[in-house]
Amino acid sequence: MKSVLILGTGLLGTSAGLALHAAGFTDAIAGWDRDPNQLQIALERGAVTEKVTDPIAAAQQADVILLSGPVFAIIDWMEKLSTILKPCQLVTDVGSTKSQITALATRFFNQSGRAAFLPGHPMAGREVSGAANAEAAIFRNAVWLFTPLADWQREPKAEQLIQDWQTWISAFGCRVLELEAQRHDELCAWVSHLPQFVSTALSALLENQFGTAEDMRAIGGRALREMTRLGASPYSMWRDVAHTNAEAISSALMALEQRLTHIRENLKTPELREEFELANRFRLPPRQSTSTEDK
Amino acid sequence: MKSVLILGTGLLGTSAGLALHAAGFTDAIAGWDRDPNQLQIALERGAVTEKVTDPIAAAQQADVILLSGPVFAIIDWMEKLSTILKPCQLVTDVGSTKSQITALATRFFNQSGRAAFLPGHPMAGREVSGAANAEAAIFRNAVWLFTPLADWQREPKAEQLIQDWQTWISAFGCRVLELEAQRHDELCAWVSHLPQFVSTALSALLENQFGTAEDMRAIGGRALREMTRLGASPYSMWRDVAHTNAEAISSALMALEQRLTHIRENLKTPELREEFELANRFRLPPRQSTSTEDK
Repeated sequence: MKSVLILGTGLLGTSAGLALHAAGFTDAIAGWDRDPNQLQIALERGAVTEKVTDPIAAAQQADVILLSGPVFAIIDWMEKLSTILKPCQLVTDVGSTKSQITALATRFFNQSGRAAFLPGHPMAGREVSGAANAEAAIFRNAVWLFTPLADWQREPKAEQLIQDWQTWISAFGCRVLELEAQRHDELCAWVSHLPQFVSTALSALLENQFGTAEDMRAIGGRALREMTRLGASPYSMWRDVAHTNAEAISSALMALEQRLTHIRENLKTPELREEFELANRFRLPPRQSTSTEDK
Repeated sequence: MKSVLILGTGLLGTSAGLALHAAGFTDAIAGWDRDPNQLQIALERGAVTEKVTDPIAAAQQADVILLSGPVFAIIDWMEKLSTILKPCQLVTDVGSTKSQITALATRFFNQSGRAAFLPGHPMAGREVSGAANAEAAIFRNAVWLFTPLADWQREPKAEQLIQDWQTWISAFGCRVLELEAQRHDELCAWVSHLPQFVSTALSALLENQFGTAEDMRAIGGRALREMTRLGASPYSMWRDVAHTNAEAISSALMALEQRLTHIRENLKTPELREEFELANRFRLPPRQSTSTEDK
């Protein structure tokens, strides 16, 4: 992997550029963003080594093209790039949902005469967006998921680029995991999308209910802060997640609504004990801290 | 304030003893707990200087009696102590809801011939309970709320003890705030109780849905961790909160259920943008970290 082009130098694209440099990548990293300010920040922060004005021409020159941004922006690029790249090139992405992107990767890429496409998703992010908030450490101890693509014909060069890309990602401090696209979207509906929509709902509700009431804000502690942190997340990204994973998100939301109703109806009955005991059994593996979490 | 008795040496009671010592209190701190193990841990950790076997007799000797534990345990102690203390003594508490405790404080205390009672509530806690998890730093940068009691007759000694107690609490690193009992319970329903029940619901749901599925746990990141942290909270404490603030909690839960339904029904409509924009406007003041939050 001698040259990289990052299409979309927002939070994740710029963080990937910073992480490549931090891990010792010394070749060119070209960058493009539809917002010239984001691209300028990415350049000034050293995430990219050059700004690109013609992203199509630049894509034809890069070994690896990283598509970064909301899911529909990634899909747009997949359509634009599908016919103009060579089989020795690799396209990969950081999109939050994977079923549609993986289906398009099978349809538009990964076949005779077409470039390779490796659908990817770093389980890293922040409630704030933009190149200014990017940092290499966002990926430390995170999981970077890839969805497997069956039976595709790879050029040896493209196969090598996949290995190279995953080696760099490991050097970012990520754990590389494979997860089938449908399972990815189902799991993410529960562990990522549901928390986001709950946090949005709770933040919107509190804003409606209390406006600027200072006593509410004065007594809100860690619990409130954690539960509303993601309320600051941008619509632009989550619109695409909601559109491309609506069914799984809808199921998860409905299940939670029913569970909350059950708790509400049993605030004074022994059923509440059963809910707490079940919740007490839920365990996540011990956390590995990242610099981002310490903020 | 020359002598303190802590009735209930669990997480908050033991933390208060540790905080008193850390802030320079050098007189006796007696302790009692219905669980001898908790009391032994509190003694070994230096939170109390002596173990009490007859809490009623010990209460008659203490300047300040701190009632710590679930709300109904505090209420039990209020009933037991109301007639046996002297007007120069102060009773205070750390109970999570304040309407019932404040009503009883007016009825049983704070009148001619009775001891003073100052209803209090430190907005500090952890999802784990017990003396072993206590620490002085739990109160650093926290708010310690007191509900005002109108028109009560104080002995000068009791008035001095109130000032002393609040001075010590400030020395713990707490901000002392007054909040009327009804408003306290209404606000806490939103900023503390609702987050707890959402976290319990989500944790119970995930435990049901995924059991021990490792792929779900592997990809769960910071968002999931934050949203389920309070799922580990003990039923014993939250049962009393649910019973003594059921109406306000029920209203808050129903409002959130409706909001989640609204989001679910609008995953693909422009209404979703409005929810995100409203949520984006919700802001809490910048966080002041405590050692507990860094864990």
